[in-house]
Amino acid sequence: MDTVSPMAKGAATDWPRRGIAGKVWLVGAGPGAEDLLTVRAARVLRLADVVAYDELVSETILALVPRTSERIAVGRRAHGCRHHDQTVHPLVVERARQGHCVVRLKGGDPMVFGRGGEEAEALAAAGIEFEIVPGISAALGAAAAVGIPLTHRECASSVTFATAHAAGDNSRRDSQHATAKPSGTLVYYMGLERIDSTCVALIASGHPSNTPAAVVSRATLPDERTVVGTLTDIACRVRSAGLVTPAILLVGDVVSRRVAPSSCVRETDA
Amino acid sequence: MDTVSPMAKGAATDWPRRGIAGKVWLVGAGPGAEDLLTVRAARVLRLADVVAYDELVSETILALVPRTSERIAVGRRAHGCRHHDQTVHPLVVERARQGHCVVRLKGGDPMVFGRGGEEAEALAAAGIEFEIVPGISAALGAAAAVGIPLTHRECASSVTFATAHAAGDNSRRDSQHATAKPSGTLVYYMGLERIDSTCVALIASGHPSNTPAAVVSRATLPDERTVVGTLTDIACRVRSAGLVTPAILLVGDVVSRRVAPSSCVRETDA
Repeated sequence: MDTVSPMAKGAATDWPRRGIAGKVWLVGAGPGAEDLLTVRAARVLRLADVVAYDELVSETILALVPRTSERIAVGRRAHGCRHHDQTVHPLVVERARQGHCVVRLKGGDPMVFGRGGEEAEALAAAGIEFEIVPGISAALGAAAAVGIPLTHRECASSVTFATAHAAGDNSRRDSQHATAKPSGTLVYYMGLERIDSTCVALIASGHPSNTPAAVVSRATLPDERTVVGTLTDIACRVRSAGLVTPAILLVGDVVSRRVAPSSCVRETDA
Repeated sequence: MDTVSPMAKGAATDWPRRGIAGKVWLVGAGPGAEDLLTVRAARVLRLADVVAYDELVSETILALVPRTSERIAVGRRAHGCRHHDQTVHPLVVERARQGHCVVRLKGGDPMVFGRGGEEAEALAAAGIEFEIVPGISAALGAAAAVGIPLTHRECASSVTFATAHAAGDNSRRDSQHATAKPSGTLVYYMGLERIDSTCVALIASGHPSNTPAAVVSRATLPDERTVVGTLTDIACRVRSAGLVTPAILLVGDVVSRRVAPSSCVRETDA
């Protein structure tokens, strides 16, 4: 953690305005590539006094934050349970109360598996002003990068985002995902650790074993890689290829409708 | 339709590079607010020779396109079936073949109910280079704007995006949406025209009639409005409030976890 920045900044405009009591911006950092931030997110980052960021956020995005601003690394649940029982980092609340413009920077979108709702609840309970800036969620970033549509008039009239942890669990609520009819596209976030149990659960619940499936690792980043297969063999193919997290698993007929964009040359198709 | 722009542009950089055969960028315009474009989308728009845009795209976003560039309005299915049987506007293909940098600008994200997959297929079949730039889909824009999380550890481990048209239809595939268990958040795009039949179908398929529901109209735009209720009364409340399209319907316990951000003052809660 660095030192607290001075309040006055040359680049400051009246937007975002800094209230007397400070303000927190829950900002989605998008899927990875720095130019897949929204224009608003980039603007807020350039004005931040303090940024509390998830480990998944890249250095190139953090580089937008003024060098004099304070940086706070905030752990994610998947990376060792740091701050597991805290919905907002205590320093985020403290800095906002000191009158600072604080950005809480999260990978993807704050409202999709980003616990943005919980952090918003905690900020409201603490009486702290906040705004939420959406981000390109990993599924949207991956779909655009590798050319797999999430919906398609001919084969997928809906798309569901879930977590691989959920699909593998035996709890009542989570088992309902696995039993959902194979009528739409399924996207599992962070699916690499539980990809075997996820695919087994989907087959057990009625999805044909030859349902097309793809894993996109580090979507939109320079080392992005894609593996395509079926529910039967995708886990094996992903291991053989040595894909790394973060990764998402896409399941459904849309995978076979893939049309790779011109830029998509980082291909690991088997 | 205006005249074709000259090829040379003062602001041109080597990115995006213009190939001899031209190139098409399928670009998501996001939910509405112009600063919710991605940085990449804004950059591509500033370099476009030709932009073919959906009717839902706002004037403030189109203002990024050079004034000398050609503009082509492309109808959406929901607005009178223009170009219904064409996946790509013929002029998009023609201009790309002439060597131009063509932006196909779509509301929201191209791969979520944007027919981006179909347009990509058609471009690939025509031998035209293309890239896809993701956008903030309406559900993500609305969630951030009004403070309703799409997933929440305590009440929604998944989120499904569907179309209201699908939910109201009697076809086999579409009826499966309505019978999905109420385990996750449901978001219906363009739900206003079919909101009654959508809610009736959800209740008939087992969703409790007091399931929280919200409609967000023109999310992220200055005249954004939100109405909150339940599956029983949301349609009536929306009509009373006189909400207009585009709008999305959110269904699930996350609606009751709403925490409105500081900027969210355009409230129509009943």
